[in-house]
Amino acid sequence: MAVDAGAFLERWHEIVAKRDLEGLRGMLAERVTLGAPPYWNKFDDRELVLHLLGLIVHTIEDFSYHREWVRGHELALEFRGSVDGMELQGIDLITLDEDGRVRDLEVPMRPLNAVTALRDRIAPQMLAYLRGRAGS
Amino acid sequence: MAVDAGAFLERWHEIVAKRDLEGLRGMLAERVTLGAPPYWNKFDDRELVLHLLGLIVHTIEDFSYHREWVRGHELALEFRGSVDGMELQGIDLITLDEDGRVRDLEVPMRPLNAVTALRDRIAPQMLAYLRGRAGS
Repeated sequence: MAVDAGAFLERWHEIVAKRDLEGLRGMLAERVTLGAPPYWNKFDDRELVLHLLGLIVHTIEDFSYHREWVRGHELALEFRGSVDGMELQGIDLITLDEDGRVRDLEVPMRPLNAVTALRDRIAPQMLAYLRGRAGS
Repeated sequence: MAVDAGAFLERWHEIVAKRDLEGLRGMLAERVTLGAPPYWNKFDDRELVLHLLGLIVHTIEDFSYHREWVRGHELALEFRGSVDGMELQGIDLITLDEDGRVRDLEVPMRPLNAVTALRDRIAPQMLAYLRGRAGS
């Protein structure tokens, strides 16, 4: 079945611009996987992925999308922004499932100093989130 | 003028597979710029860029290309490999000039440990190269 990548992108950009995490949840497949910039192993729990994506879009300043490529259900979306005054560039490599939801998202990024800063800003918040979840 | 990205890709893959640096030189515009994974500032000297790309393809083991996107003269080529046993994933974001040569190449990559290892393996060799050039 053909996936409507155009409709996906329109909605994706709207949701990212609004930092609309509730809307984002509906765009992620139940078994979504995320390959975050600092780590190799994938995150594979939708609530965890959603929380992490929320932290990322809130931590990167001046986040904006640039070049965009679509090939069937595989998308590549270039973005730019900064963390602690350090500029960064990355790309969302997105695989859509047959329902047009994100099945896999991998995020290569550069340069090292900004990715390290991003990890150092987000890791303590993720830990606090995981502790809260474990305790609830 | 339309750029023949298909012909570019065929030649690019052939050259990367052979580690053919002389062939690669002819595919780079004279004023090529390179945004390497660890650094933000661009390298903008063709011989330096060529040398650095050579070090990168020789240092990454089991280098292979995967997904590929083309949009006019803008290309995105996903690759995978490993450094010191650490798996990595990156993407060549390539802008071609009107002659079908690489005008700009930016390389976001993940994860942090592999990018750090890549930098640590390559930086001393780049320094030796630059010292040799300065002394010649």
